[in-house]
Amino acid sequence: MTGTPRIDLNADVGESFGSWRMGADEELLPLVSSANVACGFHAGDPSVMRRTLAQCASLGVVVGAHVSYRDLAGFGRRFVDLAPAELEADVQYQLAALRGLAAVEGATVGYVKPHGALLYNAIAHHEAQAAAVVAAVHGVDPSLALLGLPGSRVLALAQDVGLTCVTEAFADRGYRADGTLVPRSEPGAVLHDPGLVADRVVSMVRDGEVLAVTGERLRIGARSVCLHGDTPGAVAMARAVRSALDAAGVRVAPFVGESSVDSGPRG
Amino acid sequence: MTGTPRIDLNADVGESFGSWRMGADEELLPLVSSANVACGFHAGDPSVMRRTLAQCASLGVVVGAHVSYRDLAGFGRRFVDLAPAELEADVQYQLAALRGLAAVEGATVGYVKPHGALLYNAIAHHEAQAAAVVAAVHGVDPSLALLGLPGSRVLALAQDVGLTCVTEAFADRGYRADGTLVPRSEPGAVLHDPGLVADRVVSMVRDGEVLAVTGERLRIGARSVCLHGDTPGAVAMARAVRSALDAAGVRVAPFVGESSVDSGPRG
Amino acid sequence: MTGTPRIDLNADVGESFGSWRMGADEELLPLVSSANVACGFHAGDPSVMRRTLAQCASLGVVVGAHVSYRDLAGFGRRFVDLAPAELEADVQYQLAALRGLAAVEGATVGYVKPHGALLYNAIAHHEAQAAAVVAAVHGVDPSLALLGLPGSRVLALAQDVGLTCVTEAFADRGYRADGTLVPRSEPGAVLHDPGLVADRVVSMVRDGEVLAVTGERLRIGARSVCLHGDTPGAVAMARAVRSALDAAGVRVAPFVGESSVDSGPRG
Amino acid sequence: MTGTPRIDLNADVGESFGSWRMGADEELLPLVSSANVACGFHAGDPSVMRRTLAQCASLGVVVGAHVSYRDLAGFGRRFVDLAPAELEADVQYQLAALRGLAAVEGATVGYVKPHGALLYNAIAHHEAQAAAVVAAVHGVDPSLALLGLPGSRVLALAQDVGLTCVTEAFADRGYRADGTLVPRSEPGAVLHDPGLVADRVVSMVRDGEVLAVTGERLRIGARSVCLHGDTPGAVAMARAVRSALDAAGVRVAPFVGESSVDSGPRG
Repeated sequence: MTGTPRIDLNADVGESFGSWRMGADEELLPLVSSANVACGFHAGDPSVMRRTLAQCASLGVVVGAHVSYRDLAGFGRRFVDLAPAELEADVQYQLAALRGLAAVEGATVGYVKPHGALLYNAIAHHEAQAAAVVAAVHGVDPSLALLGLPGSRVLALAQDVGLTCVTEAFADRGYRADGTLVPRSEPGAVLHDPGLVADRVVSMVRDGEVLAVTGERLRIGARSVCLHGDTPGAVAMARAVRSALDAAGVRVAPFVGESSVDSGPRG
Repeated sequence: MTGTPRIDLNADVGESFGSWRMGADEELLPLVSSANVACGFHAGDPSVMRRTLAQCASLGVVVGAHVSYRDLAGFGRRFVDLAPAELEADVQYQLAALRGLAAVEGATVGYVKPHGALLYNAIAHHEAQAAAVVAAVHGVDPSLALLGLPGSRVLALAQDVGLTCVTEAFADRGYRADGTLVPRSEPGAVLHDPGLVADRVVSMVRDGEVLAVTGERLRIGARSVCLHGDTPGAVAMARAVRSALDAAGVRVAPFVGESSVDSGPRG
Repeated sequence: MTGTPRIDLNADVGESFGSWRMGADEELLPLVSSANVACGFHAGDPSVMRRTLAQCASLGVVVGAHVSYRDLAGFGRRFVDLAPAELEADVQYQLAALRGLAAVEGATVGYVKPHGALLYNAIAHHEAQAAAVVAAVHGVDPSLALLGLPGSRVLALAQDVGLTCVTEAFADRGYRADGTLVPRSEPGAVLHDPGLVADRVVSMVRDGEVLAVTGERLRIGARSVCLHGDTPGAVAMARAVRSALDAAGVRVAPFVGESSVDSGPRG
Repeated sequence: MTGTPRIDLNADVGESFGSWRMGADEELLPLVSSANVACGFHAGDPSVMRRTLAQCASLGVVVGAHVSYRDLAGFGRRFVDLAPAELEADVQYQLAALRGLAAVEGATVGYVKPHGALLYNAIAHHEAQAAAVVAAVHGVDPSLALLGLPGSRVLALAQDVGLTCVTEAFADRGYRADGTLVPRSEPGAVLHDPGLVADRVVSMVRDGEVLAVTGERLRIGARSVCLHGDTPGAVAMARAVRSALDAAGVRVAPFVGESSVDSGPRG
């Protein structure tokens, strides 16, 4: 078990819509190895998608389908209680559209990451919706990976049907000793110091651990680390993380296409 | 030049949206060989699309992507002056989504048919939008055919880049001596008698001609005949056409997959 | 306490959208005294709204704003977990648009009825959303009434701020002995016999009671009875109800504008 | 010809949508006297509208309904060939929604300004759409003013039915000697120097003239000057214009409510 330590960095991109701009895709994309690209249901439109996919292709960034509820007005952040069969069809539509545009632009769609309320509120707890997402992805292409939160139902169900499951950690979020995130309403939920965040990510990769908000050392096995792109200072923080990883000799590379032996972020 | 005469019959299907029903897909689909399936921009939603594609697959009906302006409120019937690059991306998004869902359901997407104002108002005359549609289709898959109106710019441009071009005639529309349709504002624009319409279609296929509204015999070389599905009496008319073709020994078969030798509707 | 017995009949109308038709507004509107008009968020578009409002005006039917989640694809039937402030603004937008168009057409908007999931799933149980609807209505015009289900939170909260609250009964739904509706998954949930339904409505009005599915006599105090418009046989049933009420000497009249003395459906 | 010179300054605001931000409303609103508020069809959502209207109310800024084609994806910048009756209903819906929300927030809607393609491409040339906009505004409230481009059809038609018509000049656009704007494709179309722009606006108001791109003095009679809000440097330019007007003793005040004697920008 030797070799260069490696990690995947992912970020949300392609979230502009029509005349509205969001995010700093140009600055972020050269720093990450995986890009969660909006598919038109919560953000993104076909022109934005093509442009984003072309950038991913030219940078060699692997694309993830950032699928969502159909909710432009709410940016996909509101739980929608739709029937599992409808959700399955909605996810497949988005995934298919993205894959088709990616083929045009020469980009590779390697995984699916549920977005917003679909990820947080529903997928982690809502069995029927989680199953619908898994059925949707598996129905389109069983070789696609699913990127999600550790311990979420959707990943357990995905594993049952043989999908590759990848968990992510968050560069700038505080963790509790049990491995869950500090809620945004509590102190320590979000870290703002780029240097501190960069050190944490290096430690996640090299040592497989991170300090919990209460001081404990927490084992963390994520193969991907999520960088935020739409917060003030996001680009500076992403650059700090990337530089620190480079300086520490960590290879930033997509989890898609990793050899199965090298199945985690440990060196 | 022997053999069984053959013709393709096409109809618009999958035009329901959410709780709204439109068309008589169940009755029409067993009568046609090609189905123009809405892709969500003027009609259709992912669940409707999946259901429609499953029906096409089980009946062996070839699917065409019925691409449109993004205009649910106007059902794609209003010209939208969007930039060619936007139109190209919008068409590719729809086409990709449909192809992906078709793959899930085991249906074959063999061609693209522009819908509504995109077909009539813009494509026939609007050079830049016509070129955008051709670029969109060619960019996704150059083996896709394009179904359109005889003499339209989009077919000429499509031929230039090597796309298979197929023209359609209309079962229930009156023709002028120059081969154009009688405008809907004029008498004779729409034929309502199923027997008469059925006879005309048989004549189109067997003799390669149709009587113009002014009495002349008009040569017509369409490889596909369009049946309407959302008018009163549409199903009865479609059944009359199909029965008459069957009785006349005409084979109803998709134009997609035709041998190139048998390139027209003549026997 | 003498005089002619009276009742309000309400129905959902204006649920077409663009090229899609829904309901039998032309047949239903002459039979009812109140019309719940869709405001564009789950159904209806500005042209449909104007046409519907003109019909209401010419028939003297009082208009209710049928407000909903913003969800055309789901027809407002899916719970959306949006923030109360957003829901309040969404409801006010719909209500304001309807009132403005009603003024143009000479129609009177007298009340608000939450639609679909907003009515059933959320308003009855979801305190914050119920409060948002009440705040929205009160903010626009405190003289508007609120039409809803007996026992729902939204009516209780509305009463607290002084809004007129009106409850409705359902002509074609079975009731349990406790006054709640028989769930649609159980036998007896929906009644299909027009004569039986008509008799029940007459009994509701004249006697203030209805037979529960288990045979008990149930007191019912609704000032309005809801007729369904989009089910097969809906028009025939509505006509049977109206004829039976007319024959029984019951006056069908809007609850809006009723004198406060005559505060219920009893004579 | 005595008294303090005065002018109205207008700007587009309320163009955010959901999670997407646009414009610098907070900085611009204190500088203008009239605000063109998006109504949800090209930009703006009910929550954004309420927030914007509350700001207008607290600053005493008069609100104009910035009505548009229904085209979020295109920000209303694409001509849509919709039927006049549909356009009339669409405009009334937007106008009614805005007026209702304005009443809630205590803001005054004093005028209507068509947005984007509705203003430029269609209204100036498209007789039927221009007539539809006029009918829409007149039908809702004949005391509303219409703000538009000098020489446009919509203003001529509006004048015919008795609507108050107000023309605007552009602070940062070059003019040709005939009074038309220098097209954006030509040099001199847009001015970027805040000082220069400020001087031009002062000259427009005090002298009733502006220098054409070819050097001629051009008479200009606009009662309102449009400031742009979503370009880089927009706020700095708006501040420069406002300061220069204040320094020159020009009173910045809404054209709505002006006495009819003081009908122009002359001192």
